[in-house]
Amino acid sequence: MLTQEEILEIRKDFPYLSQEWDKKIVYLDSAATTQKPQGVLDALTDYYKFQNGNPHRGAHYLGQVATEVFEEGRQVVADFIGAKSPNEIIFTNNTTQSLNTLAYILGLNKVKEGDEIVISILEHHSNLIPWQYVAEKTGAKLRYIYIDKDSKELREEDLDQILSEKTKILALTASSNTLGTLPKVKEIIQKAKAKSKDIYTIVDGAQAVPHHKVDVQDLDCDFYAFSGHKLLAPMGIGVLYGKEEKLNDLPPFFYGGEMIEYVYEDHSTFLKAPMRFEAGTQNVGGVKGLVAAIRYLQAIGLDEIDAYEGQLTQYCYDQVKDMDFLDLYTVKNNHRGSVITFNLEGIHPHDVASIMDSYGIAIRSGHHCTQPLHRYLGINASCRASLAFYNTREEVDQFVTHLNDVRRMMGLGSK
Amino acid sequence: MLTQEEILEIRKDFPYLSQEWDKKIVYLDSAATTQKPQGVLDALTDYYKFQNGNPHRGAHYLGQVATEVFEEGRQVVADFIGAKSPNEIIFTNNTTQSLNTLAYILGLNKVKEGDEIVISILEHHSNLIPWQYVAEKTGAKLRYIYIDKDSKELREEDLDQILSEKTKILALTASSNTLGTLPKVKEIIQKAKAKSKDIYTIVDGAQAVPHHKVDVQDLDCDFYAFSGHKLLAPMGIGVLYGKEEKLNDLPPFFYGGEMIEYVYEDHSTFLKAPMRFEAGTQNVGGVKGLVAAIRYLQAIGLDEIDAYEGQLTQYCYDQVKDMDFLDLYTVKNNHRGSVITFNLEGIHPHDVASIMDSYGIAIRSGHHCTQPLHRYLGINASCRASLAFYNTREEVDQFVTHLNDVRRMMGLGSK
Repeated sequence: MLTQEEILEIRKDFPYLSQEWDKKIVYLDSAATTQKPQGVLDALTDYYKFQNGNPHRGAHYLGQVATEVFEEGRQVVADFIGAKSPNEIIFTNNTTQSLNTLAYILGLNKVKEGDEIVISILEHHSNLIPWQYVAEKTGAKLRYIYIDKDSKELREEDLDQILSEKTKILALTASSNTLGTLPKVKEIIQKAKAKSKDIYTIVDGAQAVPHHKVDVQDLDCDFYAFSGHKLLAPMGIGVLYGKEEKLNDLPPFFYGGEMIEYVYEDHSTFLKAPMRFEAGTQNVGGVKGLVAAIRYLQAIGLDEIDAYEGQLTQYCYDQVKDMDFLDLYTVKNNHRGSVITFNLEGIHPHDVASIMDSYGIAIRSGHHCTQPLHRYLGINASCRASLAFYNTREEVDQFVTHLNDVRRMMGLGSK
Repeated sequence: MLTQEEILEIRKDFPYLSQEWDKKIVYLDSAATTQKPQGVLDALTDYYKFQNGNPHRGAHYLGQVATEVFEEGRQVVADFIGAKSPNEIIFTNNTTQSLNTLAYILGLNKVKEGDEIVISILEHHSNLIPWQYVAEKTGAKLRYIYIDKDSKELREEDLDQILSEKTKILALTASSNTLGTLPKVKEIIQKAKAKSKDIYTIVDGAQAVPHHKVDVQDLDCDFYAFSGHKLLAPMGIGVLYGKEEKLNDLPPFFYGGEMIEYVYEDHSTFLKAPMRFEAGTQNVGGVKGLVAAIRYLQAIGLDEIDAYEGQLTQYCYDQVKDMDFLDLYTVKNNHRGSVITFNLEGIHPHDVASIMDSYGIAIRSGHHCTQPLHRYLGINASCRASLAFYNTREEVDQFVTHLNDVRRMMGLGSK
């Protein structure tokens, strides 16, 4: 298990966390985006200083170097998530683009009227609205798997009843950004495939990949999406994994340079995956930053990170769960994502976040892009503290202490 | 006019151009992607060190700072291209995404069978294949404006004959990446609008924005697309300009976070532009880099850059145009983009580029993502040297000298 001393050493790698500030900030919003280690920034700038060219295009030295950086990145990402081949890794700019790509090329082409698309009430808007769009365009039915309002786990009976031979798409988060619920993705995919032979299974891994080791072959999902920027990497780079034969069975999405075989005035022919899905100049600098981020995480160890974050989240959970002025929404199961989501009785979550900010504690307030989930839980909004491996127990203590201060500040007193 | 001394000073701002190398590289592939000044790299790393948060989401300090960086960037870009309002600036990841966005949200929604989509034979694949796709999906007809094979200018008679009341979309490059032709976009848009009241006009500015001052209100186009990475900015950031009322008349493209008003289980409502079109976490670091790039260009002056590049390109053009073993494709008009595109008789362009690379001259070979144009010109491929303001006359001299060496190397001798 990572010790507090080791965490303090790790923090030195992060310019944002280690620099001197007028006001010290406790950053508890890593589920929105993570801070970046110096090594990632160095990778970015080194790319632009020494290797910058347009990949797959040039016979010249820099074109070749850029191509090597880009394709090495594809291999690193493939290895990181256990893909069978680098051909299964498509670079996008974020999870939202990855999932929307699937909505357009898979949803609009493979889903028909009478089919059903199954998602869960936990889904982030980016794995929900695209499927509303597909349902509307195709006449398919969008169905939800709900959660038990007490445990915050997916309802087994919903899984049994809703998954059927009509299920054409199952699109499921691997980790709720709001409740920290970790659906048993592998088992659910098995169940879905047992009921529907002709199904496509999609996993939204945006909140899972930064915290838990992922093996897409073990999950046996058809597609898996995640973002770099929640994973220590720069913004503007994301990943869409797809099984190679599934990808090659789909039409292109964006049309343009480097995804074609032949272009005639009236028609064109296209390359196979991954190039088919990577039209235009790709974010090679972002890929190099992502590689540096992955290597940084691997050097610490994903299992170490998972264990430490689990313990730190539980440490926080244990301190807030008995506060009688606090409604806690985080999943009870202690195998969970690193989020503590709550409301303080009688105080709007925006006020809570603003006052916490005045104490230098950065938490998020709002609907966290899960309005249907909030509505299902009977609330409009909530506060969320999200932890990363670079957070300390002392930071959690400050968070907890200041929650009481918020009550006092609003004249409600600590109960 | 910028002097050679000033250019040498400018080069010191570019780590790639000013560093010590084992082998000096003459970079003549800026039309593919430009090198980056240190100020752009500093802007990127400063963002991640001091300002990194997820914009539009947080009540906390970093969320606010990231929002300010992002929205200030929108204003800077709006001013840079003469937009009426920052609401008209959508951030994408490159020109290809900008143009494909239009194909999906405009093309598939506004184009009907019987309509015509007009493009030119000069178009880059990214402003050509998306329209093939729209034509195929909608039953519209895709029509081409050709060029005069001698002058390389658009044929006036084609403009007169092909633009009509049936023209629903006119999508035109402002600068050919292959021939350097600068279509008279403003006049052509006027002509098209005079013939078709219900038309959408789209300009591919990828090759224009880095070299010439652009004023979208003066052009009176409805949409304008360009990339950051060809403009000294990092990869992974691009722009789609659209007139505000036109944007707000279109449906969203990507669905996800921060583009919604309300999300219910069965339907959603959406914000207006620009947020409607920016689902998911945006590339704020990229925007900050783009702002630094724009300010760098503005400090030198776009008109200064335009004049210097024009003169430098002409200097190169004049040296190669009379080489009798060289077929030159660059537009004759000396008001042109900064590209010299050619073939050496009897030598495959890939061999030319490879041998030039061995001399440390980085030029591109291939079809430059304009296969239909190459086919129209009766060739399969060509070599392209593309210049930027950071190139010197001495570099052009080296390029010209080594063209003769390529001939000798291939045993053909210099004529």
